[in-house]
Amino acid sequence: MKQIESIKEFGGFLNRYVHPSSSCHCDMTFSVFLPSVAQNEKVPALYWLSGLTCTDDNARTKGGMQRYAEEHGIALVFPDTSPRGADVPDEADRYDLGQGAGFYVNATQAPWNRHYHMYDYITDELPKLIESELPILGNVKSISGHSMGGHGALVCALKNPGSYRSVSAFAPICNPMECGWGQGCFSAYLGNDKEEWKDYDATELVKSGARVDTLLIDQGTADEFYDEGQLLPENLQEACNSEGQELVLRMQPGYDHSYHFIASFVGEHIAYHAKHLKC
Amino acid sequence: MKQIESIKEFGGFLNRYVHPSSSCHCDMTFSVFLPSVAQNEKVPALYWLSGLTCTDDNARTKGGMQRYAEEHGIALVFPDTSPRGADVPDEADRYDLGQGAGFYVNATQAPWNRHYHMYDYITDELPKLIESELPILGNVKSISGHSMGGHGALVCALKNPGSYRSVSAFAPICNPMECGWGQGCFSAYLGNDKEEWKDYDATELVKSGARVDTLLIDQGTADEFYDEGQLLPENLQEACNSEGQELVLRMQPGYDHSYHFIASFVGEHIAYHAKHLKC
Repeated sequence: MKQIESIKEFGGFLNRYVHPSSSCHCDMTFSVFLPSVAQNEKVPALYWLSGLTCTDDNARTKGGMQRYAEEHGIALVFPDTSPRGADVPDEADRYDLGQGAGFYVNATQAPWNRHYHMYDYITDELPKLIESELPILGNVKSISGHSMGGHGALVCALKNPGSYRSVSAFAPICNPMECGWGQGCFSAYLGNDKEEWKDYDATELVKSGARVDTLLIDQGTADEFYDEGQLLPENLQEACNSEGQELVLRMQPGYDHSYHFIASFVGEHIAYHAKHLKC
Repeated sequence: MKQIESIKEFGGFLNRYVHPSSSCHCDMTFSVFLPSVAQNEKVPALYWLSGLTCTDDNARTKGGMQRYAEEHGIALVFPDTSPRGADVPDEADRYDLGQGAGFYVNATQAPWNRHYHMYDYITDELPKLIESELPILGNVKSISGHSMGGHGALVCALKNPGSYRSVSAFAPICNPMECGWGQGCFSAYLGNDKEEWKDYDATELVKSGARVDTLLIDQGTADEFYDEGQLLPENLQEACNSEGQELVLRMQPGYDHSYHFIASFVGEHIAYHAKHLKC
């Protein structure tokens, strides 16, 4: 892995790296914010999964998270949202399929199945890499994300009990099988057998008995994609209620789907994760 | 003036407006963050002037300022950095002259002299407009900015004693007459008589006796434009020392010219302005 950028921020460093990925069969770029305390000791990490069209850059530039990570002494890990490159299949005229839209699954269908293994990349390859190369504690991690990345955070945590100390999400796609974005990507990446889709659907995973210790979700009520039925937090809420899974779902009046919404509440999310990462 | 966007953030609202400008003879766009308290009472305003290539969007998206403005109950005003539009002269292949590079002067030379009156726009037209249309206190304002906008903040304050309660800047162009960016814009906008340039040069203004009550500047030591000699804070420091103008110039070790640098210290700047705006 090669460091390609390092920017001092809040006393820590916002670094960017490129490495050849064995999961995705291409070079992958990611960023890490290391708080100042990481100059002397290993720190826990919060993984942040971004949404459709994003790279590693959006959240680190617009999320306003680094200040809180410095305060709590935790690292932030910003992966890309898909494999990238000229050799990687894409749908150039669609923002919601292909590059920038990996949906955090392991694709099984051609032409996606060689490169689109974001699930393995996020849950296995990237943590191993950064825990060996950077001052980041082994296996003391939490996960959060936005929209498609909120879906990713929920699914990664639900499918790996004990791997993440805490999970949260902003306006996540809670039930991708039942919305346009999810159906478009799942049919392309996973094929037409909907039983296969359930394995990457937070609502279905909860219904099947998957559990996390604690779960925090913020959803703006003025979010156009919520209005369109892309996010469906009520479906997850209903599954959690039926199954006895704790869920703190906060409907935030008047907030939209943008990073301004994230910035408004990410301090509370990072404090929540820090509490679990440091206990 | 017409509101074209409103985004809820930190309990307040980040609004965007368009209006026909009498100073610039074109439609101008700006953004204002109104903290939640502005729903019930008028609040003081901090003007933020952005740097080369920016619009009103950069600082509001990347600066991380709104959180602090909400805490202190002050509005943030984000003007554009130049006149805009198909009728407005531009140098399409240059980032440092024309649209996006108004340099906060009143241009006297063709073809710039019809539209490029950013000095009048910032110091007179825009405050009158927002103080009449928005819940913003009359004449209780401060000013800050970055790079070209830092230059703008210093010049607006030095030329208008008593108009701004406080002034600060991040990596400002302190002595534009002596750097490439300033010489390029001043010769185009103001002509070849360098005596005319002195009226928009913070270092020269201090030498000529202009004063502000208080002045705070942060400059990163790893700033490539500082290394290139575009910013020249030492020249301003020397003038302030000779003339008895107070200046707090903080050289911030390892910080660059980016919004990550601004985000790291803008909380301290907003606290400083809030102290002066609310006393």
